[in-house]
This record gives sequence, C-alpha cells and structure tokens, in this order.
Amino acid sequence: MLPMNFLPADRSADYILTGSWGKKAVKEAKRCGAVNIAATMADGGFTRVPGQDELHLDPNAAYVHITSNETIEGVQWKQEPDTGDVPLVADASSDILSRAIPVEKYGLIYAGAQKNIGPSGVTLVIIRDDMLQRIPDGLHTMLDYRTHVENNSLYNTPNTWGIYIISLVCKWIKDKGGISGMERENEEKAQLIYDAIDATDFYRGHADADSRSPMNVTFRLPSEDLEKKFTSEATAQKLDGLKGHRSVGGIRASIYNAFPREGVEALVSFMKDFERRNG
Amino acid sequence: MLPMNFLPADRSADYILTGSWGKKAVKEAKRCGAVNIAATMADGGFTRVPGQDELHLDPNAAYVHITSNETIEGVQWKQEPDTGDVPLVADASSDILSRAIPVEKYGLIYAGAQKNIGPSGVTLVIIRDDMLQRIPDGLHTMLDYRTHVENNSLYNTPNTWGIYIISLVCKWIKDKGGISGMERENEEKAQLIYDAIDATDFYRGHADADSRSPMNVTFRLPSEDLEKKFTSEATAQKLDGLKGHRSVGGIRASIYNAFPREGVEALVSFMKDFERRNG
Repeated sequence: MLPMNFLPADRSADYILTGSWGKKAVKEAKRCGAVNIAATMADGGFTRVPGQDELHLDPNAAYVHITSNETIEGVQWKQEPDTGDVPLVADASSDILSRAIPVEKYGLIYAGAQKNIGPSGVTLVIIRDDMLQRIPDGLHTMLDYRTHVENNSLYNTPNTWGIYIISLVCKWIKDKGGISGMERENEEKAQLIYDAIDATDFYRGHADADSRSPMNVTFRLPSEDLEKKFTSEATAQKLDGLKGHRSVGGIRASIYNAFPREGVEALVSFMKDFERRNG
Repeated sequence: MLPMNFLPADRSADYILTGSWGKKAVKEAKRCGAVNIAATMADGGFTRVPGQDELHLDPNAAYVHITSNETIEGVQWKQEPDTGDVPLVADASSDILSRAIPVEKYGLIYAGAQKNIGPSGVTLVIIRDDMLQRIPDGLHTMLDYRTHVENNSLYNTPNTWGIYIISLVCKWIKDKGGISGMERENEEKAQLIYDAIDATDFYRGHADADSRSPMNVTFRLPSEDLEKKFTSEATAQKLDGLKGHRSVGGIRASIYNAFPREGVEALVSFMKDFERRNG
C-alpha cells in the first residue's frame, strides 16, 4: 500500500536492507516504480544496520524505507538514518510500542498489530499530514491512505474486537509505566540473554552488538546437531518456538512486550545448564 | 479486489443494480475497466430485483455482478439470473450462511464476515478453480486471489481470533440443523414481521413481495413524524436500531442469523400496539 500511494511509476524509492522483511518490501515496491537499494547488509548475512557513510541515498527518492527491527535476523535500528529532505518510512511491525521512537523523524510508520500491539488482523499506520498531498488520484478507495484519514479509520467496518483488545493492551502498557517502562523492561529481558551469550564461546550471537534486537535474540551453537538438541530439549521443558527461521538457522528467542521476564530467566537457566552438559 | 483480478482495462463487466451496495461496487470497478449497467432498479427506488427479460447482458462481459441481498433497501435475489457462459459474481455479505445457495452457479462469491459469519475483520471468498486462470500477472501479492489460494489463506497472518470465532459460529449453525435449519428459522422470523405489515394499511413494505429480504425488513409508516415516533418509542422499549438508512428513510429491522426469534416477536407485538394507539 505504501508504494501504491507514494511511488509513482516514473520515480524511485530508496530501500535499506537489513533482513528478510526488507527484501519482501522491495519485491512489492518494484511493481509500482523503481527501487534503489541504498544499502544492503546481505553480504554479511544481515548481522547489523549500515552506518550513515555506507548509504547510497538518492536525494530525489520518493522516500527511504527501513525495517526498524528484522525479526528473522534479530537486527534493530538504534537510531534513524539521516535522509535529509526525503521522507523516512519504517516497517515497525515487530518493535512498535516496545520503545520510544522519535516519531517526528518519520514521514510514515506502518506496523501489523500482532507482535506488540494486539491480536492479528489490525494494521497501524502513522502518517505525517503533508505526506497526504503526495498521493495521486485514482487509487482504489480502500487502498488510498486518505480514505482512512478522512473517515477516522471507519470507512469500512474494521476488526472491532481486535481494536478493543488493543485498547486493553494500551492500558496494560500504561500500567507498566508507559512506553519508557516497557522499554526498560524489554532491555532488561534481552540483556539477560545477551549476557548469557557473551559470557561464553559456546553461544555466538548472530547480530553485531550495536544492532542487537531486544525483540528477537538470535544466536548459534558450535554445531547444527547441538542446535537441534538444544531446541528439542528446550521444547521438552516447555521453552517452545526457539528454532531459528529456516532461512538463517540457529536459535531465535522472540521476547515481545507480552513475553514475561520469568520466561527469559527460565531460558537463561536452561542455556547455562545445556552448556554445562554439552560444552 | 474483484475488478483488479477479473476486469482488465480493455474489457467490460455487467453490473445489475438492486440497491446501494451495488452502486458502490460499480464505482470501484470503473477504476479498472468499463462497466455496463445491465439493469438498474433505481427508478422504482430499488424495490425489487429485475426479471430475466429486463437484463441487458453483454455476452462478452468479463463477469456479471449482483448483490445477493441489499441491506439498505431490503431486497434479495431469490434465484440467480441466467448469465450464460459469463461468470456470475455475488457480493453475498449480508445473506451468506442464511440460506442454501446453488454455489455451482457462481464464478465467485465474496462476503464480509460481520453479518452472519462471525466478527468483523474477516472476508470470505469462494472462487471457482477455472477463474484463477483469468487473473493477470503483475498484481500486488496480497491483492492477487491466487496468493491466498496457493497459501491456503495463510500467506499473511490473518485475523486468528475472528477465524476461531467463525469456527464456533459454524458449529452453532450445525446445531441448528445446518444451513437448511437456519434458513427455515430466518424465513419464519421474517414472515412474522411481513405478516404484520401485510395485515394492515398502516404499515407499507418497501420491497415488492417477491424480492423481500429475510435479513432486512424495510417498511414505511403513514408519515415521517409517525416513523420518528415509532423508532423513538421502540428504542425506549429496547427495540433498538430500527431507523432506516438515511438514504431511504422509514424503518428497517435487521434480523440476521444471530437475531433471536423472541426479538422479532417483541417487535411485532410493539408494531401492533403502536398501530392501535396511532392508527
């Protein structure tokens, strides 16, 4: 929907690739207009975000697209790239509401609800007012962002139950001290696992230290056999869903807002025990 | 999504208009290709479906579109028009699962869930296998019906809670004797109100007898003042939502699958009492 609204056939958009979701976004954008890969971290296996000096930004780009957190690789942008006058756009599906973000730096943020916001079947879009003037006429009504702005997101009958649950999730986040309280808790949870990784050579983090995601902690063991044994034994102890995505392998602990600190502590305890027995 | 997939820019589709939703569908279809209004009942105020001899069908049309039940006017197709070799397509949002339909007569049926299927935020599409071959390449992934067919409706993370509730609704319908049991119950419910309308000149049905909807019963009173009094007194007796849509006025009783017979009986009792006091 982003390229339909903002990438005309005769223009180009910049995409910065730090993982699998960014690649999917490029595939869709190419149906609308040209795509300039302003940077890709594919060569290193998507272990970090690029530095500002690694970006080949086009000053005439329609927008610059990033994926704020790549779930499969466990790579997160800690601060936004400088895109000058070109609007910055983020797919923030997997870290929205997990930390404070400087929303004024973005032209548009979009995010599926199902990681941190609420149940699946709802999408959140934050769009800067002046972006609306760039939208061409003639789009299908439901696929034109202006329809939803002008109708207060009620042009169609939306997922009412999902939206109600989101109101409860927002209250729950407020009770936890708001976004800053949530962010502190997420950092503490992630640090427990990253500390366990860094304390030994048995575990090896996938992402570079300065790009590590607090949402998806990805790491490897000395061999694939040990990784299989790790996930299988973990599952038996009800530590489920730890197998890394098939495209990268290894282990992935997804610890979104709703995942409790106790679960993280149980995982760290299991990791230490597993290393003692197999290290 | 229908015209994107099946109405190329150089072709035309037939639309039969029996109410407000059909008009909306035409507006969207025109963004893709040409539209031939094969019949419109607008002149009579959308009180009935056209007869076969009133249809100006184009034998080269990409498809013929009907709205199986028009919620605002309370008009329903009792049997499908004969469209020859041209695929028949229906927006069945407001009467799907309320009655048996000869699904083999359709090329495609689409329906929002929120009337009879389950909670809002889910759409059901039934598509005949051979229709898939007509879809052009180059559509956006999420807007190409083949994506959802090939991925068993799980290309994206769908509205999981909504789909779970739909499974419970389907069980509930089975317990009521399946679609045929549901249909019998719906006909009985509607007949109670239509009988009350036909028993007097005080109430006047909007739709012609042979096009009456069992889902939305629309009728008028002798004056708009009486209609206002009717809805206001009904609301005080907890018979809510009876005001007709602003585009047609009058009274509308929407009695979808989930609406209980007791509610219909309470309405009929109120109607008789209201007439006695104001007739």
